[in-house]
Amino acid sequence: MRQINSEFGPHGDIVISSRVRIARNLESFVFPHLLSDKDAQAVSTQIKKVLEKENSGYQNRFQSIRMKETDEVDRQVFVEDHRISPALASNVDKGELLIDEQSGCSLMIHEEDHIRIQCLLKGLRPKNAFEEANALDDWMGKHLPFAYDKRIGFLTACPTNAGTGLRVSAMLHLPALTMMGHPDGLIRAAGQLGFVVRGVFGEGTAYLGNLYQISNQITLGVKEQEIIGNLEDITEQVILKERNARNHLLEDRKVELEDRVLRSLGVLKYARLIGRKEAMQLISDLILGSSLDIISDYSLSCLHGLMEQIQPANLQKKSGIKLTETERDQKRAELISAALEQGGNNHVYE
Amino acid sequence: MRQINSEFGPHGDIVISSRVRIARNLESFVFPHLLSDKDAQAVSTQIKKVLEKENSGYQNRFQSIRMKETDEVDRQVFVEDHRISPALASNVDKGELLIDEQSGCSLMIHEEDHIRIQCLLKGLRPKNAFEEANALDDWMGKHLPFAYDKRIGFLTACPTNAGTGLRVSAMLHLPALTMMGHPDGLIRAAGQLGFVVRGVFGEGTAYLGNLYQISNQITLGVKEQEIIGNLEDITEQVILKERNARNHLLEDRKVELEDRVLRSLGVLKYARLIGRKEAMQLISDLILGSSLDIISDYSLSCLHGLMEQIQPANLQKKSGIKLTETERDQKRAELISAALEQGGNNHVYE
Repeated sequence: MRQINSEFGPHGDIVISSRVRIARNLESFVFPHLLSDKDAQAVSTQIKKVLEKENSGYQNRFQSIRMKETDEVDRQVFVEDHRISPALASNVDKGELLIDEQSGCSLMIHEEDHIRIQCLLKGLRPKNAFEEANALDDWMGKHLPFAYDKRIGFLTACPTNAGTGLRVSAMLHLPALTMMGHPDGLIRAAGQLGFVVRGVFGEGTAYLGNLYQISNQITLGVKEQEIIGNLEDITEQVILKERNARNHLLEDRKVELEDRVLRSLGVLKYARLIGRKEAMQLISDLILGSSLDIISDYSLSCLHGLMEQIQPANLQKKSGIKLTETERDQKRAELISAALEQGGNNHVYE
Repeated sequence: MRQINSEFGPHGDIVISSRVRIARNLESFVFPHLLSDKDAQAVSTQIKKVLEKENSGYQNRFQSIRMKETDEVDRQVFVEDHRISPALASNVDKGELLIDEQSGCSLMIHEEDHIRIQCLLKGLRPKNAFEEANALDDWMGKHLPFAYDKRIGFLTACPTNAGTGLRVSAMLHLPALTMMGHPDGLIRAAGQLGFVVRGVFGEGTAYLGNLYQISNQITLGVKEQEIIGNLEDITEQVILKERNARNHLLEDRKVELEDRVLRSLGVLKYARLIGRKEAMQLISDLILGSSLDIISDYSLSCLHGLMEQIQPANLQKKSGIKLTETERDQKRAELISAALEQGGNNHVYE
């Protein structure tokens, strides 16, 4: 099996990314859904002031993007790229994103809570992501009066986030387990440990592209380190299962697997129209085929990148004009075919 | 639309072939299913003697292939290539094929009847095929006492062939009509004129590769010229419908059609395993795409040839060893991919 470049982080061929999110609120303001425009502005100003303090270490790192200064397509692109939540995208008036491209850290202001600190890293690195987010949380907590209750912990707009305010998750690509019909067992097992398994593209998209997100459900009455340790344990078990399933396919159903991967390549290269769901599935096949050396022309970064670029708002943004669904399917097919042509040229001898 | 090379005969992009079959029996012998080995041999000897007469014009033209001197795979290849009927292939002891590669004429000896004269020509040429077969019939009738009844006409083992003993058929490729769900109407209309529509690869194969065979059902009480004229009329109507359907697809569903043809090309090039039914459908798409200039790399003869070469016995024969179904699907995929590679190189600037 191919060596995964450190660029993708540990287990980068299976774990796309690790993410940590910390919810915080300022005690002197009501929660965002009841907040006046004036107070919303005040909260935003206070937060940015703290980040820009001379000895913060965060000076000039964050770029501010106010939702009301973006258009609908831009906001959807942010959602598809997992930079913001759908909830922030729909809070057009008050929502704001502070983003540091370098560290992978960002702050959503006036999502469900006043502050949502996020850190997203490639591969299985929830600890590193937590350290980054936690440092940011510590600095802000020193200078801002966070809503906190001795018994409960941090207070949040929705009680399911109260306590640690911490949500950790890993986004996994599990094509072999899916092919063998095993994700149900995974979902049950995760549930028993207080974790939940979801698709990554929101409600109703199922497990598009065989991408699964595992995240903790419980934020109250558990230590942060414990949540992160549990996520790491569960994810490592799932990785092991996926690797076993891949080896099993390679040993017992090699020709069938090659056939599937190569057909997917053929269709992706030649199709003139392709929907999101099918494209995600076929690219997933290429990623699997690539990790098992069935094909060697495409880099993981090309294929992971493709999965993002073919999302509807990304295509819309790229084309610059409003597209019908058929036009979008056509643009998607063009983009994929061009990317594979290019990928193929660049990586023939990889 | 591309000009069809005369090699393929009139309407060669839609009509694969025209075929005429004339059933005859020698009056002094019982029908084949009751014939002794000795008499069967006598019939065969008489027939060949007549063909080899000095002034016959058929001298040294026919090659004799006795079923008992072939193996099972050879016989199945003959059936797949439409050189013999399944009935001749199963009459291993007595069955014999006399074949003239040049004219497209052949004689099956001891199929259901003592003699089945056949002529198969490319394109829509039932008249020419009939002339060839009829000339052969005339010569043989002059020198052999055919079983004949003044009231009925020629007598045959099965009464459904009595009278003219003539069956004419055209093998048509109708992808556009099939795609638009119209063949039902065609089947009904043909039935009303005493013709029947079937698939070409025998029972249970449906219309594999969108290939349809139209043939007369009635042989008694109609003139030969009438049967042939009717087949020509019906076939020309069907050709017109197929052309209209193709134009309709090209005008109204162009991108969808391009998508379908190119996906089929992608799968055929890249698949590692492919079954007969799927392969026939995808090659049918390429033939359609080729006739509508959606693709231009492959000749009609390459694609029609592929449809024959991928049949099970053809693959079996080519590989030389007994294949499992999976191995056959693998060989089929290899053969197609190699043929398309080659076709693509040869015809890039066509």
